[in-house]
Amino acid sequence: MIYFHNDYSEGCHERILKKLTQTNLEQTPGYGTDNYCAEAAMLIRKACGREDLAVHFLVGGTQANLTVIDAALRPHQGAIGAVSAHINAHETGAVEATGHKVIGLPSLDGKITAEQVRRTVEAHWASDSFEHTVQPKLVYISNPTELGTLYSLAELEALSAVCREKRLYLFLDGARLGYGLAAKGNDVTLHDIARLCDVFYIGGTKVGALFGEAVVISNPAIGEDFRYLVKQHGGMLAKGRLLGLQFQALFEDGLYFEIAAHADELADQIRSTLDEIGAPYLVPGVTNQIFPILPDNFLEELGKNFMFTEQERVDAHHRAVRFCTSWATTQENVDALCAEFRRLAGN
Amino acid sequence: MIYFHNDYSEGCHERILKKLTQTNLEQTPGYGTDNYCAEAAMLIRKACGREDLAVHFLVGGTQANLTVIDAALRPHQGAIGAVSAHINAHETGAVEATGHKVIGLPSLDGKITAEQVRRTVEAHWASDSFEHTVQPKLVYISNPTELGTLYSLAELEALSAVCREKRLYLFLDGARLGYGLAAKGNDVTLHDIARLCDVFYIGGTKVGALFGEAVVISNPAIGEDFRYLVKQHGGMLAKGRLLGLQFQALFEDGLYFEIAAHADELADQIRSTLDEIGAPYLVPGVTNQIFPILPDNFLEELGKNFMFTEQERVDAHHRAVRFCTSWATTQENVDALCAEFRRLAGN
Amino acid sequence: MIYFHNDYSEGCHERILKKLTQTNLEQTPGYGTDNYCAEAAMLIRKACGREDLAVHFLVGGTQANLTVIDAALRPHQGAIGAVSAHINAHETGAVEATGHKVIGLPSLDGKITAEQVRRTVEAHWASDSFEHTVQPKLVYISNPTELGTLYSLAELEALSAVCREKRLYLFLDGARLGYGLAAKGNDVTLHDIARLCDVFYIGGTKVGALFGEAVVISNPAIGEDFRYLVKQHGGMLAKGRLLGLQFQALFEDGLYFEIAAHADELADQIRSTLDEIGAPYLVPGVTNQIFPILPDNFLEELGKNFMFTEQERVDAHHRAVRFCTSWATTQENVDALCAEFRRLAGN
Amino acid sequence: MIYFHNDYSEGCHERILKKLTQTNLEQTPGYGTDNYCAEAAMLIRKACGREDLAVHFLVGGTQANLTVIDAALRPHQGAIGAVSAHINAHETGAVEATGHKVIGLPSLDGKITAEQVRRTVEAHWASDSFEHTVQPKLVYISNPTELGTLYSLAELEALSAVCREKRLYLFLDGARLGYGLAAKGNDVTLHDIARLCDVFYIGGTKVGALFGEAVVISNPAIGEDFRYLVKQHGGMLAKGRLLGLQFQALFEDGLYFEIAAHADELADQIRSTLDEIGAPYLVPGVTNQIFPILPDNFLEELGKNFMFTEQERVDAHHRAVRFCTSWATTQENVDALCAEFRRLAGN
Repeated sequence: MIYFHNDYSEGCHERILKKLTQTNLEQTPGYGTDNYCAEAAMLIRKACGREDLAVHFLVGGTQANLTVIDAALRPHQGAIGAVSAHINAHETGAVEATGHKVIGLPSLDGKITAEQVRRTVEAHWASDSFEHTVQPKLVYISNPTELGTLYSLAELEALSAVCREKRLYLFLDGARLGYGLAAKGNDVTLHDIARLCDVFYIGGTKVGALFGEAVVISNPAIGEDFRYLVKQHGGMLAKGRLLGLQFQALFEDGLYFEIAAHADELADQIRSTLDEIGAPYLVPGVTNQIFPILPDNFLEELGKNFMFTEQERVDAHHRAVRFCTSWATTQENVDALCAEFRRLAGN
Repeated sequence: MIYFHNDYSEGCHERILKKLTQTNLEQTPGYGTDNYCAEAAMLIRKACGREDLAVHFLVGGTQANLTVIDAALRPHQGAIGAVSAHINAHETGAVEATGHKVIGLPSLDGKITAEQVRRTVEAHWASDSFEHTVQPKLVYISNPTELGTLYSLAELEALSAVCREKRLYLFLDGARLGYGLAAKGNDVTLHDIARLCDVFYIGGTKVGALFGEAVVISNPAIGEDFRYLVKQHGGMLAKGRLLGLQFQALFEDGLYFEIAAHADELADQIRSTLDEIGAPYLVPGVTNQIFPILPDNFLEELGKNFMFTEQERVDAHHRAVRFCTSWATTQENVDALCAEFRRLAGN
Repeated sequence: MIYFHNDYSEGCHERILKKLTQTNLEQTPGYGTDNYCAEAAMLIRKACGREDLAVHFLVGGTQANLTVIDAALRPHQGAIGAVSAHINAHETGAVEATGHKVIGLPSLDGKITAEQVRRTVEAHWASDSFEHTVQPKLVYISNPTELGTLYSLAELEALSAVCREKRLYLFLDGARLGYGLAAKGNDVTLHDIARLCDVFYIGGTKVGALFGEAVVISNPAIGEDFRYLVKQHGGMLAKGRLLGLQFQALFEDGLYFEIAAHADELADQIRSTLDEIGAPYLVPGVTNQIFPILPDNFLEELGKNFMFTEQERVDAHHRAVRFCTSWATTQENVDALCAEFRRLAGN
Repeated sequence: MIYFHNDYSEGCHERILKKLTQTNLEQTPGYGTDNYCAEAAMLIRKACGREDLAVHFLVGGTQANLTVIDAALRPHQGAIGAVSAHINAHETGAVEATGHKVIGLPSLDGKITAEQVRRTVEAHWASDSFEHTVQPKLVYISNPTELGTLYSLAELEALSAVCREKRLYLFLDGARLGYGLAAKGNDVTLHDIARLCDVFYIGGTKVGALFGEAVVISNPAIGEDFRYLVKQHGGMLAKGRLLGLQFQALFEDGLYFEIAAHADELADQIRSTLDEIGAPYLVPGVTNQIFPILPDNFLEELGKNFMFTEQERVDAHHRAVRFCTSWATTQENVDALCAEFRRLAGN
């Protein structure tokens, strides 16, 4: 069985493992106050082109999302996001458990628009009983989205502009950020994200690390006392250096971008083959996630040797499924998958 | 200016005021442990036809909703309701502030169906990552709904059946329950509600009381330690008898139903006149709330002498608005409104 | 049976009841946006000597406490109070239910000192792992305290000074504030309180109203968006005028102070008699609560005709109990109580 | 500089690192559903002598504490613990952030007694306003405690008995459990803990793992839907196998006990030397934490070459400090420390 069902099936990239091994017996202070964390933060600030960013390393994505949103909002305020947003659909109500409503906006491709945000905020304030509804205060987007789609620079700038005009925070969930930055056609850089967002995170778990997300805060209103909130929500690792070491490995010589480029290139090969056999997509994509729509019997055959994820039923005889590539995906396995696609399509 | 814009513009029905006045200097124990509360609870149990119901008097509707839902759910569980449900749209995220997600279902008329509930619950459990989403555990409905529509007995029985099959609680918000029970064509009784719901409340604030809602609990799993939760959420009145006295007045000789019948009858007169002038409705109704769609210039004229509530814009020249009747609405004012309708319609 | 066991056994002062009755059929806008609330807020601002105070009317004390504290604190911050503070001991964890720790300081008389606050805050910041403990951010005091004791102006000024130096909020719970302001020897005025505290409330429930507390906010950081929080916590009354009307009655011609002076004067008579018979006190007092220590057999006899509250056992043969006076206490009943004291003491 | 200041300064035991390395490229399902987690859970059940225990792997101790307590309590219930308990003093109010009060009991040695629990619970129910205070429902203890002390089997049995009599849960925080189990004089086994507690956890972070705590649940009332709560609180690792692999390494051939025995043995050597030079202790101990009281000038000299933790000032010239040993502490370093003790003591 060859796995394409997600990007977190293996451990971590060998250069990360090597660094963890080499430093294993070193003694460092706890709770993220060690030099590795400091060094990794410095590398990330450099990659973002700004000296004034606060960087905190958290264990996972749900934790990063709930901690950031809890830090940013007062009790009566809520977070705007797509109905399909990870915080709305896949985190067991983690944001609500901190007391805040997620205000879901409809979206077919996982993205929300500046115009949607504007309308939502203006409708709130136009109500003559606005104090009876949750005040929108933060916009949550993920890039790439849960459906693998990407925001263009123009879209991101428009979102940022409406947030600043309306005094909302813009928060970008970058659980798979690397795959977006490295994708063909992407025009957004880390510099742009740091400039346009109030807070975002650079995902490690799904981009070659054992675990860990680097939360980057450019707006001091969110960053104040942030470490208290990390501790309170159980996200402060005693051996915090484990996170610093991993992000140091990812950012000290471009490994993060190398990993992402590898996975995106293999995903492009899969997309080419799917195009070749004429498979449509649930949503078009350029990152490491691919969502083709395929016939049930095709998928049944394919499933004998390949693992993928069910996404949704499209009609009586077709389903959308997901294939993922990662740092650990091999050319050999991609070749095998593409060959099987062609065989099953009768090409 | 004649007010039709809501059902809580005045103080309370004279028989309630009289009882409060007559007992004003009596000394009673605090926090709802007095005899008036006991008596009122007994009268409500009798009206519901069951001796085993727990009855608690709370100050207002939002408080009743958040306290009941917080009492019923474990942290990872959520409440299903219409997108337009009061808990989802008009309570500033009170339910989320207790940590629980409101799972919104689409609805055009304010009601949700047993089939919608079934699909939502089955979809949850069918997911291979169900632990990553909020577990649906309670169904919240209001009757009448926010749009004045009513559940039929068959609809309520179907909802109750699917809740019991799927082990969810059914919670009925009766902020305007009287107006539903007294409406023409209604086939649901208090006995039915007590039998079919796990918990519900009988609204006083909008049906003639100064304030107060009587929470009625038939499922002991929700009722256990309920008074702690009332206290914790700031809903336990030191002079608890104020609530007992009001509900005693409402239920000792049928005043509750008398008030509701009066308001519904006047609303029916308004509906007749609207039918006569050919006004369509946003939603058809039988209770004390009326949602006609009228031309902007008609409403502009009408607004010079009558107060009503804006509901929503329907097209470039028409808006849906709301008229409410109550215990305090007079025949004389209804006559004036109907005459103005006819005049403006050119009849 | 003659009741001295609390100050909320009856309804309300006749001038309040009269105002509620006279205005009962008036139509007003809902949710505290009516003119009576505006007028009452203006009267309270005037009584405090400041035009810039925000005034909000809430239903009860627990609700006022939890709403103010939730409005003031970020998630990792806590409220300092006496171990015996109402928020720590008598509100079913209402503050914790909003996510915040109450940091309890030892106190024998219900009061805490500026020095205690200073030490607590300095200890927090001196810790090398301060982010692992709750950050003290608000000081909660009640005046009079739960034991009927009063802060002097000097004590209050010292607390205020340390709070400002250390950037904490000072919050004064005035559930029985009137009885303190009117007490013999008190040197604190409403002007002082408005000047020294960031937020406080003037209790109505225990000082002649049916219910209601007037929250007065002098620090805009706490007041921002406060109405959202009132609504979210279920404290926004649809018929908000009920609160405005009551506080208008209490403040338009000095009724609030008149009521308090009456109760304090009667309590002084009881204290004189207790002094006369040589009864010691759990804590000395000057307000409407009296905490004498009396022999068990004395109390057994007394309990046949008089109702009082058990406070605590002092030794094998003596208990501290509580007597309360209020606006509704009559000279006749006080005379009867004092006579019984003398009779049982064998005087 | 030689470090004795905590037991989490290094990475992990070499056998753990080896297992992580060897399995790095294996593909496993995510979120703790892999075979390594299943295997580790089985080994832990075996070590506890019971087949019916639920085992969940969480990232850290604060997260384990808050998730277990949130799973166990209804909103109005609280957790009893020592004032010095980790949940009360060192977790930034993580338990309060889930809405629950920590009811602190005084303790000089970090332990609480069955008698204290009994008095607390009985006092609650004896109050005539018990619904106005938080209901005690769970007893939290740590073993070893924050001060390195141990519960005897008799003490643990007494606590368990009072909890069962009063229907409270007993929760044992075993962040350093291994060091307790391996200590000289300890008479408590894993079998006892599983039998006497409703839930406990076996700490990995401080006993040789990179990170991770194994929560063991014997009471199904707490275990129901537990994975939802882990996910909601951000504690579910995508690469969950990292936790399974580490606990498999710790429990497959007794490594956990071997590590603990090593550290305890070295700590005993340090204690012997301290006894030899006549140093008193803040609290006597038998585990890997040692709390001697030493003169300031002694500590100043010692601090030039050795790292330890400040605990508290004892008098004008003496401080209590903490020395920790761990799996990574070497005999050589212990010899150096002991030699320095003797040199400074003038022996």
